[in-house]
Amino acid sequence: MHVLITGAAGMIGRKLTARLVKDGKVIGQPIDRLSLTDIVEPDKPAGFSGKLDLSTSDLPEPGVAQQLIADRPQLIFHLAGVVSGEAEVNLEKGYRVNLDGTRALLDAIRTAGDGYKPKVVFTSSISVFGAPFPAAGIPDDFHLTPLTSYGTQKAMSELLLADYNRRGILDGVGIRLPTICVRPGKPNKAASGFFSGIIREPLAGLEAILPVADTVRHTHASPRSAVNFLIHAAGLTREALGPRINLNMPGVCVTVAEQIESLVRIAGPKAAARIRREPDELVTRIVAGWAERFDVKRSAALGFKAETSFDDIVRAHIEDELGGKIAA
Amino acid sequence: MHVLITGAAGMIGRKLTARLVKDGKVIGQPIDRLSLTDIVEPDKPAGFSGKLDLSTSDLPEPGVAQQLIADRPQLIFHLAGVVSGEAEVNLEKGYRVNLDGTRALLDAIRTAGDGYKPKVVFTSSISVFGAPFPAAGIPDDFHLTPLTSYGTQKAMSELLLADYNRRGILDGVGIRLPTICVRPGKPNKAASGFFSGIIREPLAGLEAILPVADTVRHTHASPRSAVNFLIHAAGLTREALGPRINLNMPGVCVTVAEQIESLVRIAGPKAAARIRREPDELVTRIVAGWAERFDVKRSAALGFKAETSFDDIVRAHIEDELGGKIAA
Repeated sequence: MHVLITGAAGMIGRKLTARLVKDGKVIGQPIDRLSLTDIVEPDKPAGFSGKLDLSTSDLPEPGVAQQLIADRPQLIFHLAGVVSGEAEVNLEKGYRVNLDGTRALLDAIRTAGDGYKPKVVFTSSISVFGAPFPAAGIPDDFHLTPLTSYGTQKAMSELLLADYNRRGILDGVGIRLPTICVRPGKPNKAASGFFSGIIREPLAGLEAILPVADTVRHTHASPRSAVNFLIHAAGLTREALGPRINLNMPGVCVTVAEQIESLVRIAGPKAAARIRREPDELVTRIVAGWAERFDVKRSAALGFKAETSFDDIVRAHIEDELGGKIAA
Repeated sequence: MHVLITGAAGMIGRKLTARLVKDGKVIGQPIDRLSLTDIVEPDKPAGFSGKLDLSTSDLPEPGVAQQLIADRPQLIFHLAGVVSGEAEVNLEKGYRVNLDGTRALLDAIRTAGDGYKPKVVFTSSISVFGAPFPAAGIPDDFHLTPLTSYGTQKAMSELLLADYNRRGILDGVGIRLPTICVRPGKPNKAASGFFSGIIREPLAGLEAILPVADTVRHTHASPRSAVNFLIHAAGLTREALGPRINLNMPGVCVTVAEQIESLVRIAGPKAAARIRREPDELVTRIVAGWAERFDVKRSAALGFKAETSFDDIVRAHIEDELGGKIAA
């Protein structure tokens, strides 16, 4: 199996790479070649014995997508994209990378001309949805009314993927990731950053800022679950998926207060005391437009699994990022 | 008011033009300039006293959209596009005209750079939806899962329009037209053609073929209503529309049997006897994937009105196309 990962240098891309290398196989087949590409060169993963290609690529540039699929990878994880904040600030860049980049990849597959028909796993986002939402949760058949350019680009890409899937050009599946928590690394400027920050920083002995009320409710999945979703999606057949290939992923729906309760249970009140409440009107307003919960009957029926409690999400972070150690 | 119509040579474009010329105003303002463009040169409308521009244009060609908006029309009816059947047969042409053409127009507006912010009324289609549908009708918040490339291109264009509307680049509104019935002109190869054919041909003394069962249910609006929708949409404010600017239009939901009953009531059994039943498996299968009915609370609340009975649709055709005369 030859696997291509676009956006391989990003957080999810690196974790997916590590997991594929560790497993040595995917969809039950040994991985003999791994092509990793991103706008910056991805790191060389440790311990991969097959053929490895590392490259930098700007997907919407003419000829780039053709080059990436020249050796016909059978499985493509298409993760490349600019993030929400950047797509909102820089309209042209967002459409160029997130929409035109996806279209370039899909069109390269379409025009390959030798019966090439890879499996394409696309990372979409819950930002394809926009408020107001039904109180009971966003059903799988809820309409696409994104309130960001990023969400618009993801929704447009989903539609293109579904059309190319329907036409038999590729085997596609789009997974709408919930907020990934606990994101490793440094705090960033993303409006959603605090959901991770209030867990990650206290566990590392650092102070975290909470800009919204304790009552804010949100749905989370760990980076580990995100990788599981991608790998599980790769194994789904056309028959199992049917024509509706873009799927809401499961997650853990909790309030900020419940997140903090988990932190206290696992790391004690001292950790939680490192959270400083500093209400921010802008962040509060942005977050109010986000989805709180999802009704994920379809992805559950298709076998996608996330953590079942926020405690599990905190523990996954401690295991995967902190080597099991919590700051005293 | 300077009005631009793309796709002005098409059936709806011609009727919209005639209506605007007849009214002499739109959104309460006199029309002093009318720019009509299409891939073939639109006919000169009779009786327009303002400035008239007739042009041929291929929207996705570089510079064409810029040229069309060079004099900053305040109101744009964007009707240009290739039809469903053609977009399915010719994938590249469909995406080029229906998606890239729309994007070229919207990007020309975005990059005008002088505070230009026109009202853009976009004709979308109910083909943004795909079966299976809820039995009670497709609600306004039903997800976008088109089963044709045409529907995909319309859905992608809707999303782009909504994002540009949200960002304040333009004032947009997308109207999802139901099947237009009775379409004037000759029978065509469209799978939906018989819905019009079984009324139009018998009224003209000609035989019509019915390829599906009498029990097939569908939603229709007259060409007159389609024009009304476009003009009503032009007058809606940002405040009235809110962020969800792509709207299901109302129509008359009837079975084929009920269509024929209307024909009998209005033109007698002799007309209905001109319908020959010739079941066609392919057409039957295609039509089975189409939406039967819609829940159109939003467009009703926004003041859109269609005919309330199929009798009215038949009468509109007799008045508008047959000068009030029915074949004996």
